Amino acid sequence: MDLEGVHILRTLDDAARLRSLVTSGVERAVVVGGGYIGLEIAEAFHHLNIETMVVTMMPTVLERTLDPDMAELVADHMRGMGIHVETGYMVECLAGADGSVAGVGCDDRSFPADLVLLALGSRPQIELAKSAGIPLGATGAVAVDDHQRTEIEGVWSAGDCAEAHHRISGQPVNLHLGTVANKAGRIAGINLGGGDASFPGVLGTAITKVGDLEISSTGLTEWHAAEAGIEAVSATIKSTTAAHYWPGSSRMHIKVIAEKPTGRVIGAQIVGGPGAGKRIDVVATAMWAGIPAHELAWTDLSYSPPFAGVWEPVHIAARKVAELARKGS
Amino acid sequence: MDLEGVHILRTLDDAARLRSLVTSGVERAVVVGGGYIGLEIAEAFHHLNIETMVVTMMPTVLERTLDPDMAELVADHMRGMGIHVETGYMVECLAGADGSVAGVGCDDRSFPADLVLLALGSRPQIELAKSAGIPLGATGAVAVDDHQRTEIEGVWSAGDCAEAHHRISGQPVNLHLGTVANKAGRIAGINLGGGDASFPGVLGTAITKVGDLEISSTGLTEWHAAEAGIEAVSATIKSTTAAHYWPGSSRMHIKVIAEKPTGRVIGAQIVGGPGAGKRIDVVATAMWAGIPAHELAWTDLSYSPPFAGVWEPVHIAARKVAELARKGS
Repeated sequence: MDLEGVHILRTLDDAARLRSLVTSGVERAVVVGGGYIGLEIAEAFHHLNIETMVVTMMPTVLERTLDPDMAELVADHMRGMGIHVETGYMVECLAGADGSVAGVGCDDRSFPADLVLLALGSRPQIELAKSAGIPLGATGAVAVDDHQRTEIEGVWSAGDCAEAHHRISGQPVNLHLGTVANKAGRIAGINLGGGDASFPGVLGTAITKVGDLEISSTGLTEWHAAEAGIEAVSATIKSTTAAHYWPGSSRMHIKVIAEKPTGRVIGAQIVGGPGAGKRIDVVATAMWAGIPAHELAWTDLSYSPPFAGVWEPVHIAARKVAELARKGS
Repeated sequence: MDLEGVHILRTLDDAARLRSLVTSGVERAVVVGGGYIGLEIAEAFHHLNIETMVVTMMPTVLERTLDPDMAELVADHMRGMGIHVETGYMVECLAGADGSVAGVGCDDRSFPADLVLLALGSRPQIELAKSAGIPLGATGAVAVDDHQRTEIEGVWSAGDCAEAHHRISGQPVNLHLGTVANKAGRIAGINLGGGDASFPGVLGTAITKVGDLEISSTGLTEWHAAEAGIEAVSATIKSTTAAHYWPGSSRMHIKVIAEKPTGRVIGAQIVGGPGAGKRIDVVATAMWAGIPAHELAWTDLSYSPPFAGVWEPVHIAARKVAELARKGS
């Protein structure tokens, strides 16, 4: 871990250091970790003409926000770009020579690298809270109510260190997302300033891209739904980002997950070309409002050939999952 | 009107005829009408290197779906592309020579053209309904209930010839949109086949583009709100389609219209670069569900720098209009 060429990316200083390094002669990089940060940094390395590999111990990339069927589309796309992706690979050691990193892994399945970026996820920074005796919640982050109040009077908490209420599972979660941190900070600020504001909770909506592939998700994956004790069905459709005959139309997969038999929408995942990802916001808004899948299928969404088919793909996925939820299959 | 070179665009045959004409030597075209069809055909002519002008008797383009402040952004963009736009111009005659059209207008303000395309809007085709004694509604289109039943037993109607229920104004409307026709047709089909389905109504959501400018709208404009007797406020924000520092981020204006003092969202309009237009679907979904502006401002929408700022522009516009609605100003 102390070898030269082994880095993490957490602070602006980390980023500046990494940038000066990768623009001056790195040939092979291995990114350890297949989450958002891992994929985004791998894309950046690849664009700098560095031979790039992503290794993850998990069976797929983005396993926290995508089900395996959707994640596989992302891994395939990365491979198509020329980024190597190794899943199910546990990094147990780093190889070095003369104090510099030489590769990842020390057995038969090892990968040479002159730069290793560890993107292994983040943890809430709760040292200050702990030392001040502020109670943590079930997630290990600071427990707060909907006013961002901790359990100690006069102390508020917001940001990656604090929990938030998940509107679908009903459970506290600790999501490290800029959107959640900004909203919670605003709520805390209003209340600190003598106002009265409640944080209405989160769905965990997120988006990223790798090359020209857009990836977004909201709510629970099938795995998370099972973990939360919700009986769910899912429908995945393959469609296009514009009318199929429109020049530049590209492939898009939309997966919608609903509760049986109510049809309550509890999650969605989108993987596709330019214009695909932000469609997740439509499903997120429907989930927020509690519109069930069979109603989402009839909402009045915009159409013209450069933007969609006449039945917006979100409609088609919603209708399909609504039918499955009703049948109870 | 009978001069050679004067065309309309309604059928596939019209389109084929027009296509063969414009790809064989048209130099100057005037499109009469500033609606969706007028703008889309003007864009197509312009791309074929035809010197193109749009003339409309209305004070702005797209006056049925955009308020003048938003429409002006579209007209400016078109002018920037090199498409001439003349508003407030009533075409009272066409000039011809040797049986062919030579220009639009016969006074001081006339415009030479070897092709004139009349895109003056569409009317419901109700001749069959009238001759069969089927009652029309207030809009002049066929009156139907939510099962697409006309007032004559055993006769259903769907498509551009039929009315639909507007969820915001509560009034019947006659919108000539592919989305509405497809949904109503499906409802009629289900009911004709012995099923039982209701059409839940429309918001009038629509989208188009001119060059790389995307234009979308849903619900009522300020003018339509006044006409429907709804006291409304609006907020227009200027933002970007991605984080402001992101390469390729482009300008986007979002206008949200809400009812006083409830904050009920009754309409929205978006004009901006790639990625702007489809954001209208988020507002449409919120309107569909009845989420007021002050709640829309806190929904969990996706963020990463290639796609949005950390406060999605829809949030910012919703918050601003919510504050105005509450103040009653």
